[in-house]
Amino acid sequence: MNMRDARRPDFAHFSQLSTRWMDNDVYGHVNNVQYYSYFDTAVNGFLIERGVLDIHGGDVVGFVVETNCSYYSPIVFPDTVHVGLRVARIGDSSVKYEVGIFRNAEEQVSAAGAFVHVYVDRSTGKSTRVPEATRAVLAELLRVPH
Amino acid sequence: MNMRDARRPDFAHFSQLSTRWMDNDVYGHVNNVQYYSYFDTAVNGFLIERGVLDIHGGDVVGFVVETNCSYYSPIVFPDTVHVGLRVARIGDSSVKYEVGIFRNAEEQVSAAGAFVHVYVDRSTGKSTRVPEATRAVLAELLRVPH
Amino acid sequence: MNMRDARRPDFAHFSQLSTRWMDNDVYGHVNNVQYYSYFDTAVNGFLIERGVLDIHGGDVVGFVVETNCSYYSPIVFPDTVHVGLRVARIGDSSVKYEVGIFRNAEEQVSAAGAFVHVYVDRSTGKSTRVPEATRAVLAELLRVPH
Amino acid sequence: MNMRDARRPDFAHFSQLSTRWMDNDVYGHVNNVQYYSYFDTAVNGFLIERGVLDIHGGDVVGFVVETNCSYYSPIVFPDTVHVGLRVARIGDSSVKYEVGIFRNAEEQVSAAGAFVHVYVDRSTGKSTRVPEATRAVLAELLRVPH
Repeated sequence: MNMRDARRPDFAHFSQLSTRWMDNDVYGHVNNVQYYSYFDTAVNGFLIERGVLDIHGGDVVGFVVETNCSYYSPIVFPDTVHVGLRVARIGDSSVKYEVGIFRNAEEQVSAAGAFVHVYVDRSTGKSTRVPEATRAVLAELLRVPH
Repeated sequence: MNMRDARRPDFAHFSQLSTRWMDNDVYGHVNNVQYYSYFDTAVNGFLIERGVLDIHGGDVVGFVVETNCSYYSPIVFPDTVHVGLRVARIGDSSVKYEVGIFRNAEEQVSAAGAFVHVYVDRSTGKSTRVPEATRAVLAELLRVPH
Repeated sequence: MNMRDARRPDFAHFSQLSTRWMDNDVYGHVNNVQYYSYFDTAVNGFLIERGVLDIHGGDVVGFVVETNCSYYSPIVFPDTVHVGLRVARIGDSSVKYEVGIFRNAEEQVSAAGAFVHVYVDRSTGKSTRVPEATRAVLAELLRVPH
Repeated sequence: MNMRDARRPDFAHFSQLSTRWMDNDVYGHVNNVQYYSYFDTAVNGFLIERGVLDIHGGDVVGFVVETNCSYYSPIVFPDTVHVGLRVARIGDSSVKYEVGIFRNAEEQVSAAGAFVHVYVDRSTGKSTRVPEATRAVLAELLRVPH
């Protein structure tokens, strides 16, 4: 599927985020950089909500190794952003999320991209297997409803 | 009133904002800088909602000349922030807002401060009288309910 | 070339940027989002320096349509970031930049990615030919020295 | 002294910081929020440089309890910012810094404010005496040269 045509039913989980005044750049649109703050807020927020990310005490953490975004139509403060998530691939030590950014009540994505985590053992710094509890939770994002 | 003791009824209008993963700094708390992004998001969001701020076409805009914040207790992503607003003073060309930051459902402020706009004529760059339409809208923030 | 192996001589122009305290996230590394602020600072800074980007008065502006980044090794405040730029492709209305992020005096990239501008006529909102003056300046970034 | 009239010789230490494209807001000036990122970058950068702030292993850390800023004249990307620091007061457990923001080669401040740290024992969360090593380093910022 071309991500440009992605719609809400193509994603398995949604987070609602508020834009901020300073997200707008000099052209009066949300700056390209801020979209990535929506991506990692949605992914980490989901993992915290489901109880599989403990940012303070966790032995194993996800480090971001790759991200990308295509921008199809502008978002402007004070829009509300709805971030759709799905999991494209769970590997041995990595997880690839696909992310769609929806503006207010719009049905078609304004922007879409990907976000790849590699799991790392905090004490050794080496990549490690995605924990079983995380895999169980991520399975939820593999089941895109339609 | 000592702002440290401010509670929700001390403010006239509330905006609900989502925190972001990257608001957290290395200590795992929302960084002091981000509070100011909640301040100007709440103030400008209110003015846009009420129809008295047109960021693209307006002849008269509010420039920020002074801000301050006291931090009483930490906020942590993924908390939701509730920003309370009231107007402390409407001068000839300036408006002073007082702002309280509430964490999730808490009744007492986590942080509080002030935000001062001076109205400027965009073509001349000189300070100018706060427009009548804006004054009418701001009157709403002078009436703290309790 | 695999961008992971990119070194300084693979880029045609460098900008030196300071990291900020709040670029560090809870893991003590520069957050993935901030790398994109280095990308658009370097690209727009280059265009302003060379006199082909007037953010206030320009009739034609570059809108970002696609970005990506791969992260190879961490950067930490207070590191200095050196952003290497080169142009991979100048199309009719688009420019694709490749960007390398170097940490302090390191010779190998810490992160690398791409940044694509489409030129748009501000009054009509339609894509338009990359201006001749911009093409002349970008030619400089096509000539990678080695 | 009125901070509006502060000049470079009124500060004891300077940090040079680059502005970023996205620091500019819709009015084409650096947004009021970003000034605070210059403040805490300058303060924490100074403390790290002098070897008295270890963000990962330190038992005692400085938490920000109060900040303020007055904005006198705009700064615009791609300006370079020079942040002047001095210490106004070292208390038992707190340090008050005064900060001046200078634009490029200008001699008079564009903005100025204050930044107050309270030292906290990380394990107990209680305020604690500013460490002796930190006091020795801060003495340097009490000696304003002129």
